[in-house]
Amino acid sequence: MTTLSSPAIRWDGQTLALLDQRKLPLAADWVSVDSADSCANAIRDMVVRGAPAIGIAAAYGVVLAARQLGAGASASSLQDALATLAASRPTAVNLFWALERMRSCMADAHGESLIARLEQEARQIHLDDQTMNHKLAEHGAALLPDQATVYTHCNTGALATGGHGTALGIIRTAWDQGRLKAVYAGETRPWMQGARLTAWELQQAGIPCTLVVDSCAGHLMATGQIQAVVVGADRITANGDTANKIGTYSLAVLARHHRIPFIVAAPLSTIDLALASGSQIEIEQRHPDEICAVAGQRLAPAGAHAFNPAFDVTPAGLISAIVTEQGVVQQPDIDKMAALLEGARR
Amino acid sequence: MTTLSSPAIRWDGQTLALLDQRKLPLAADWVSVDSADSCANAIRDMVVRGAPAIGIAAAYGVVLAARQLGAGASASSLQDALATLAASRPTAVNLFWALERMRSCMADAHGESLIARLEQEARQIHLDDQTMNHKLAEHGAALLPDQATVYTHCNTGALATGGHGTALGIIRTAWDQGRLKAVYAGETRPWMQGARLTAWELQQAGIPCTLVVDSCAGHLMATGQIQAVVVGADRITANGDTANKIGTYSLAVLARHHRIPFIVAAPLSTIDLALASGSQIEIEQRHPDEICAVAGQRLAPAGAHAFNPAFDVTPAGLISAIVTEQGVVQQPDIDKMAALLEGARR
Repeated sequence: MTTLSSPAIRWDGQTLALLDQRKLPLAADWVSVDSADSCANAIRDMVVRGAPAIGIAAAYGVVLAARQLGAGASASSLQDALATLAASRPTAVNLFWALERMRSCMADAHGESLIARLEQEARQIHLDDQTMNHKLAEHGAALLPDQATVYTHCNTGALATGGHGTALGIIRTAWDQGRLKAVYAGETRPWMQGARLTAWELQQAGIPCTLVVDSCAGHLMATGQIQAVVVGADRITANGDTANKIGTYSLAVLARHHRIPFIVAAPLSTIDLALASGSQIEIEQRHPDEICAVAGQRLAPAGAHAFNPAFDVTPAGLISAIVTEQGVVQQPDIDKMAALLEGARR
Repeated sequence: MTTLSSPAIRWDGQTLALLDQRKLPLAADWVSVDSADSCANAIRDMVVRGAPAIGIAAAYGVVLAARQLGAGASASSLQDALATLAASRPTAVNLFWALERMRSCMADAHGESLIARLEQEARQIHLDDQTMNHKLAEHGAALLPDQATVYTHCNTGALATGGHGTALGIIRTAWDQGRLKAVYAGETRPWMQGARLTAWELQQAGIPCTLVVDSCAGHLMATGQIQAVVVGADRITANGDTANKIGTYSLAVLARHHRIPFIVAAPLSTIDLALASGSQIEIEQRHPDEICAVAGQRLAPAGAHAFNPAFDVTPAGLISAIVTEQGVVQQPDIDKMAALLEGARR
């Protein structure tokens, strides 16, 4: 089979290669992944990050596990690999969605025929994400005021997905349509995805981007420099509550205070109907050292305490619109979210 | 004369020594300052920072200039030094207030008698700040809910002042009174004063402190982990609008949304009656590289644009109370601010 490649994920039929996003933009090193264990490690250690990209990587991780089992590959022999991959990160639901999609095509097959079927499914997940990103971006770009300057948080671009991007996909499409003026990118502490990844992607795309510290967002809104906020999502519950990178909730409150549209962009696979509301979302707590040291250099005093939640939850009431490949939900609530998913099933 | 020493500023009668706050807490290096020029450089380069500490350092800078002039020291020969010091940083009004206090004691003196008078005045500015901090802290501590966990931004402690601190002085005093539970310190990008200085000061004082990224503040408020926000100020205008470290305005909006008290702590010298409102405050724009690189390592791609205002303005309407050594102004406005200053003059 041919190689399937997007900016951060490459599958050549044998091996998964992941662009090491911890080192961007200073270095563009690819990490070779050849087992479910090494795939789970790459997800946990943030070699690959971004909810959709995590889902794609995990799907390939299942294929790698099946290849290692060879003739012994079966739904039951793959349970350990599925569990290992599912335990890599807790918040982004796309991970569980992708694993479920892989699991659902395991029935009545084993060995080489199962391996082939799993590889086909992983490739399809990868390709589908690109297609969905473009559809989503068309829907979202139409929501932006003409010649808007948009604020975004974290990285939701080609690096975080199968290509193009979710929130950054909207930005790319609006730019291609001549409807976007410029972008402010919050640097996104502690991992600096805005400074390292979003600024880099937008620079490569020729889209004017200005980097700011995260705490500058309020000042930009108060001084009229932003007309919309566009962010991604790691999990959206049945009522529209949205878990996303820490700092997203603060942006939503600030946008409401300044009457600026606050737009969440995510594929349908980010929606988790099993959870009624955001209070049920498990928020990943990462190691305090991610805050206490920067770029490998310790800044906080030895022994300092830190609290490092990777995500926060924005209630649906603060969200102007949730944008998916299936369309837009304005002022989301449980009924509108259900109607969107009902429409997608038809 | 005796040596006058506070945690970050030491005057031995000949030389000004400043603790290099850019290197804390990893190193405690003192920088020796022997002229108005080197004092201005130390302020601009943030060897010394914090509005009250900048004012104290500048006052000693005038003494150093007078010493260099010796018998030729006079109000007119000191004009260049005053101008150099005034040009070091634009936003903190304590700098201009301290220089004005120095200027006002120059009349009818020159040479050694002027030098002695200036040194006396600089020492008094230094000592007065300590006294005012303690008075202010008593007023402010009384405003905190009992057993509150308080969020603070930047560093407003003994390092930022002549000793004790403004917002951090309130925290210290409330702790000493047994009325404080704990502190969350925002790391305060881009200079990380929260991570490097506030966490260190509170650790030394034995006050429980948890470090967070700045964008975590909203999440902490939404989850009920904070009962008050206490910050300092670099300039307060006649109507109570307050310029302070970038991110302060976002905190004020978040506090309002969550109905949490937002308290500004500053000595009267921070109030600038010459400005009617915050829109007239000059906001210092610092070099984009302060954002693009962290701890000396570049993170953003080469050629990335960045916007790096050092301060933002919080309108009086979002401030629950302004706390000074003269007392507290609840829900500040132009009349209440005028009444406070009128009371101070009596």
